[in-house]
Amino acid sequence: MRSRSVRTIEWRNGVVVTIDQTKLPNEEAFVEMRSCEHVAEAISTMKIRGAPLLGVAAAFALALTAYHSKARQKEELTDELESAAKIIRKTRPTAVNLFWALDRILVKVKGFSGELKDLAALVVEEAQKIAEEDVDANRSMGKYGAELFVDGDVVLTHCNAGALATVAYGTALGVIRACWEQGKKVRVIATETRPKLQGARLTAYELKRDGIPVTLITDNMVGYVMHRGMVDKVIVGADRIVQDAVINKIGTFTIAVLAKEHGVPFYVAAPRSTFDLTIKSSEAAIEERESEEVTHIGSQRIAAEGVEVLNPAFDVTPLDYVTAVICENGILYKEDFRKFKPCHSK
Amino acid sequence: MRSRSVRTIEWRNGVVVTIDQTKLPNEEAFVEMRSCEHVAEAISTMKIRGAPLLGVAAAFALALTAYHSKARQKEELTDELESAAKIIRKTRPTAVNLFWALDRILVKVKGFSGELKDLAALVVEEAQKIAEEDVDANRSMGKYGAELFVDGDVVLTHCNAGALATVAYGTALGVIRACWEQGKKVRVIATETRPKLQGARLTAYELKRDGIPVTLITDNMVGYVMHRGMVDKVIVGADRIVQDAVINKIGTFTIAVLAKEHGVPFYVAAPRSTFDLTIKSSEAAIEERESEEVTHIGSQRIAAEGVEVLNPAFDVTPLDYVTAVICENGILYKEDFRKFKPCHSK
Repeated sequence: MRSRSVRTIEWRNGVVVTIDQTKLPNEEAFVEMRSCEHVAEAISTMKIRGAPLLGVAAAFALALTAYHSKARQKEELTDELESAAKIIRKTRPTAVNLFWALDRILVKVKGFSGELKDLAALVVEEAQKIAEEDVDANRSMGKYGAELFVDGDVVLTHCNAGALATVAYGTALGVIRACWEQGKKVRVIATETRPKLQGARLTAYELKRDGIPVTLITDNMVGYVMHRGMVDKVIVGADRIVQDAVINKIGTFTIAVLAKEHGVPFYVAAPRSTFDLTIKSSEAAIEERESEEVTHIGSQRIAAEGVEVLNPAFDVTPLDYVTAVICENGILYKEDFRKFKPCHSK
Repeated sequence: MRSRSVRTIEWRNGVVVTIDQTKLPNEEAFVEMRSCEHVAEAISTMKIRGAPLLGVAAAFALALTAYHSKARQKEELTDELESAAKIIRKTRPTAVNLFWALDRILVKVKGFSGELKDLAALVVEEAQKIAEEDVDANRSMGKYGAELFVDGDVVLTHCNAGALATVAYGTALGVIRACWEQGKKVRVIATETRPKLQGARLTAYELKRDGIPVTLITDNMVGYVMHRGMVDKVIVGADRIVQDAVINKIGTFTIAVLAKEHGVPFYVAAPRSTFDLTIKSSEAAIEERESEEVTHIGSQRIAAEGVEVLNPAFDVTPLDYVTAVICENGILYKEDFRKFKPCHSK
């Protein structure tokens, strides 16, 4: 956003306020959430989306639970927090940041030996800390990532890994923003990202607002622009980085194959909370969403009646296709993975 | 179509009747055209689309001109036909079938030495012959093409190269139909084909009507389905086959790269009238269409206001990515191209 102080999600004394991403770019509507159930609904319906933002929203769901709790004993509050976490865990299975944030707070809760009122405060504080750390991580990723780009680069991105996918600044788009702050005038090609059109709706909106040049294409034009030499680099976000692959929005793998074929570097920008090096891609759950996302746009039917549909929300890009991953600690190449200590390593 | 007698376009004594493809699958509306201008409008607005069908429509545009002409001299009618051809030539630049059909008739007209009334009859006859030959070519392509498939194959197709892109039966979908007629139960994965959604609207509709199993995916899921081993073969149509490449609907090249990466055969089905071996791909015009096709679906805006857009209607797939081209004379591999005599070779 033009003003760096604008935040996608905010804690305001027992209310969590977020922008409704399903209404963008036509309407800037805000949602006020007062309970874990409100947050779960906002996540399921994708009012809130983007892996880092899902982590922060999950943390705030616990903060709301703690803040409004009428529990009279510590064990009671702990049970309530665990129930709340259970509800949030059921919303979306792929982005690991969500599970990471819940676990981080629950570990603190279990290790806490003080009094009830301090426990509630601790949960709220920890959630706010997670939100602050997200902004710092994005800034840091931006700084490291911008080193990989030069003035005049045309950078293709997919989906929305921007301020709207995080608390502020963005992961992949944070790197683009950092380039501009350093005087490197990179231009962006954004894929529309069917079925939910996060590229057309959110990335184009964010970059237009910041005055960063952006050209929108349909997802099937990626081959065309690469074949014509119009793309210097690709940068995307991630929903989960596992031992052997990057799991990200459906369409990412298609772009990665095209990048490899055309010798275009393929970068992933994601905070350490997105790394889940305890598993392989074959063990990761890939969310399958309802077929209406493909057969309809809004209320308008666009496909023949009764046709069978596939609608995986994510795909798997093996590390062989990934030039490097940018995280808040620096730039990771394949060979660095083994030495790397993400938030989730056991 | 279930009944093989249903035709996408028909000549009915001075009226050309076609189905309005912009209204499918929600409405089966027919358009009656009585002049070259009517045909030009239907082509520009994509009521009529699909390379072979564009050729037949162009021929019928001249037939309408000849049939309704009030010319009193042969030279006058010839001039009228040339003016009509000029109007049709301006509609869409990429599918060569359109130019081929016009040229074929105009050559006949120029070589004609009889009387005025017979000249008009000749034009109408030749146009009808072009329409009949299209059906025969598709049947023949189906027969040859089906040899490349086996029972149980899952075949990915892009855009619509079906009965709706031709007079009847289809090119790529003609091969699928021929498989079924031979008892090879192939299943189809259809890409929705943004921006105009011919896959979601037309291919899904045609195949559902014929009872051929079809699964719809968004264009960016092609990598996902191939990576999972869900695709045995790809078959698409073509708008122009030049010396070094196949030019077809935007998105074709992206699929071809993915097919190569995954060792999936990539077939093109197109009649000889689609071959233009006089030029290289760098000399071919690629139509750029209006940005609203990308920023809107119907009247609904789906992209951020004011964003810049690319909207090439076609892309170029070098022959290196093409396993074979199926035409009405048989199956052509790369090495056969030099010996091959298409309709356009000079």
